[in-house]
Amino acid sequence: MFSYQHIISLEKKSRIPVYRQIAISIINAIRNGILKPGTHLPSSRELAKTLYIHRKTVIAAYEELNTQDWIVIIPRKHAAVSERIPLLKPQMWNEETITSSYGHELQLPFDIVNKNINEETIATTFDVIIDDGYPDVRLSPIDELLKTYRSLTYRKYGIKNANNGTTQGTLKLRDELVNYLSETRGLNISAKNILITHGAQMSIYLSANLLLNSASNVIVGKPNYPVANMAFERTGAKIIEVDVDQDGINTDAIEAICKKLKINAVYVIPHHHYPTTVTLSTARRMKLLELSKQFSFAIIEDDYDYDYHYTSSPYLPLASANHSGNIIYIGSFSKILDPSIRIGFMVAPVNFITQCTALRKMIDFGGDGYMQNSLATLIKEGELKRHLKKAKKCYHSRRNFLDGLLKEHLAKYVSYTLPSGGMAIWIKLNSDLPVASMSKYNLRINRIDTTQNAFRFGFASLDEKELELTVKVLKENILDIEHTL
Amino acid sequence: MFSYQHIISLEKKSRIPVYRQIAISIINAIRNGILKPGTHLPSSRELAKTLYIHRKTVIAAYEELNTQDWIVIIPRKHAAVSERIPLLKPQMWNEETITSSYGHELQLPFDIVNKNINEETIATTFDVIIDDGYPDVRLSPIDELLKTYRSLTYRKYGIKNANNGTTQGTLKLRDELVNYLSETRGLNISAKNILITHGAQMSIYLSANLLLNSASNVIVGKPNYPVANMAFERTGAKIIEVDVDQDGINTDAIEAICKKLKINAVYVIPHHHYPTTVTLSTARRMKLLELSKQFSFAIIEDDYDYDYHYTSSPYLPLASANHSGNIIYIGSFSKILDPSIRIGFMVAPVNFITQCTALRKMIDFGGDGYMQNSLATLIKEGELKRHLKKAKKCYHSRRNFLDGLLKEHLAKYVSYTLPSGGMAIWIKLNSDLPVASMSKYNLRINRIDTTQNAFRFGFASLDEKELELTVKVLKENILDIEHTL
Repeated sequence: MFSYQHIISLEKKSRIPVYRQIAISIINAIRNGILKPGTHLPSSRELAKTLYIHRKTVIAAYEELNTQDWIVIIPRKHAAVSERIPLLKPQMWNEETITSSYGHELQLPFDIVNKNINEETIATTFDVIIDDGYPDVRLSPIDELLKTYRSLTYRKYGIKNANNGTTQGTLKLRDELVNYLSETRGLNISAKNILITHGAQMSIYLSANLLLNSASNVIVGKPNYPVANMAFERTGAKIIEVDVDQDGINTDAIEAICKKLKINAVYVIPHHHYPTTVTLSTARRMKLLELSKQFSFAIIEDDYDYDYHYTSSPYLPLASANHSGNIIYIGSFSKILDPSIRIGFMVAPVNFITQCTALRKMIDFGGDGYMQNSLATLIKEGELKRHLKKAKKCYHSRRNFLDGLLKEHLAKYVSYTLPSGGMAIWIKLNSDLPVASMSKYNLRINRIDTTQNAFRFGFASLDEKELELTVKVLKENILDIEHTL
Repeated sequence: MFSYQHIISLEKKSRIPVYRQIAISIINAIRNGILKPGTHLPSSRELAKTLYIHRKTVIAAYEELNTQDWIVIIPRKHAAVSERIPLLKPQMWNEETITSSYGHELQLPFDIVNKNINEETIATTFDVIIDDGYPDVRLSPIDELLKTYRSLTYRKYGIKNANNGTTQGTLKLRDELVNYLSETRGLNISAKNILITHGAQMSIYLSANLLLNSASNVIVGKPNYPVANMAFERTGAKIIEVDVDQDGINTDAIEAICKKLKINAVYVIPHHHYPTTVTLSTARRMKLLELSKQFSFAIIEDDYDYDYHYTSSPYLPLASANHSGNIIYIGSFSKILDPSIRIGFMVAPVNFITQCTALRKMIDFGGDGYMQNSLATLIKEGELKRHLKKAKKCYHSRRNFLDGLLKEHLAKYVSYTLPSGGMAIWIKLNSDLPVASMSKYNLRINRIDTTQNAFRFGFASLDEKELELTVKVLKENILDIEHTL
């Protein structure tokens, strides 16, 4: 048979109370068929003696098991495993079961997974990381944000207000955005046109799921922001790629396609396209608006990088033009403040926003209302504007500094067009230097494109000293590769 | 023709610089076909005079328009609208266009939207709100959380660590959860089995999308948590309802269905089922595990309410049993800390978690890494445990207090079974008192069920005084309805 010393494993050092450890052990033995329905358990006195513990502890365990119907206690007689539990065949107790694989078919193809990178391993493995364009969180007014956050929670004004309307975003933030987007982007909207999301990606996902299905066609740039393509693919829609040149996505090519095929949506990144950093020209913007009217397609305008334009004011969004309600405008604060602050927004016609809010509720009830209201305060008090001004100046100068470094140290090996804004330079390597072999040794480059033999050099997150170091390491790797050729 | 005074509207009080207001006005006139390609603009001197502004302001506006290719400046001759812009038919400029409706077919049926409630209107309209079971945020250790949060951002240790691995959740939090879930739930897992989400809802959505498609069948309780049903519906799967009685979902009925039909997943809420508050009995838990093995279906175990069980320790999760990798276990901290703190988790086999992480990345890059690490600290330092102990005691006593109030004041009108845990009582009204007419006057009830003529009375968020007031108002409304009958 078995001994209760083997069934019940006690760890005196554990933070789990001993009586609960006993209960858990007996439950596991019942669940594994070792203790069968009807089996009499030892008396509390007997089990206490076997386990060298106090009798009261065993009684507590039995009471717990009794309350949860695992056992039946017949006072002054005995305790026995409940007869109501289905009879099980004994099984080997395998503590690792939960780590076994899910055995059935899943809805995602496995190859998507391989594109994922274990970011935590990367951070600890490499000395120098070239990101694909991130803000420098050291400049961010996070502390101002958190001061407001704390003051909001201090007030303890209770559940009534803490969680209201966060599925669409707090009214306070949406009201503040109405002014902010009018001032900065010439958008003439109401709070009903805004959905607050966890970032630009969520806005893309929600729009894709509302606009597209397996019978749809969507046009994207070639190359394009890869995670957007994944979101479109998930809807079953057909993705049609159109070349991106120095003026952005080719609108003549879009027109030619529209004449042959019903297009449901066009995805554009009008400022500092990802990955190539080009800005969509005025002529093409106008053309795209015309085509959208003529061929009745929706434009998903992902303007995540609007705020950092150096050579002039940023271009007014397509969404600010007269467009009869078929533009979904997407923006984000994660790139302005800190990638950890998950606040983005979507601007669209009211009926679209209402539907998006309903879909969003299925995915996630809402955001952090305190954080949203803290951001609203940051905007209202002009703190965000001051931060943007400071950060823009700083990134502008970092762009120029990197330009200088590249010209000085790497002119022989690379070519690029200095972008008019954004947080990264799109650098093409000479054809004899394969970009895939750059990410070696102590250097990691987060976004490479092997077709164009190019990569994104995010400069915004690095100060001058860090930029110097990064270019130095990059050059060392290039020389190394050249040497081995 | 037109006058530039009509095209260019200046608001001196606006926070937008005047030169930019001019540029925006001219862009809009070009976009609307009022200013055609090739049209000569007035000289800067002339326009300055017309608008009563300084000439330098006009020059700045023209320079901006020139940089963005809206106009061409021929020095010492004139400025003209660029010829590269497509010729447009003049259109009425309608400032309200973005508020017009999106005109094409959307992928969501519109009736889903009607189920949504405008929560912000509710908060301001009603004096007394009966929620469906929310924590009392006044008890929450939010301040401890934020202290850690601030200290994490003070360190300014840069982008390298701020945003790492938040798609799956920070390693620090997942490591802490490995211990926490072992201690509290008997789960024996590694950090690789955990995905941090924005809350239980996101875990449900992700699982549904990985497990189900339009050829699948999923079993849910009747009644069930409605937003879970919506997420299942979106996958196209067929939803099969199984009755929930005082022992939870009827497992014999599940067995009968499995014998006739391929079932892909069963969704259960084992503790304090939503909305009925019943807890799944031990016998049925065992039965469900057996059926899952026999008929190879996945169990989505939504244990969002595990931590608040009053009559005994909570039941061990199904996921803690030997289950050959087909249980997806879902939990949340939003119900423990504050609905605004959007942190939930999913425990599942590694291959499932990897796929879920990939899908989650399409929806949203990740959560707030600072907040996750702050929560990890809260757990590590025992603060969460202390909070849970305190909150459990408090909610337990509130449940009993409400029980007393209901017995004293409403015994004639209502019936209910006191739940063994959770944050709400499921109250059935006498048949002559329609529950739909309760939410009137100054009272709003968030979750009613007209089929069972019942509603959820969330007691956790209300202190004794507030409970007294709420029962008083409820009684007034009942008497009012009785009177009009």
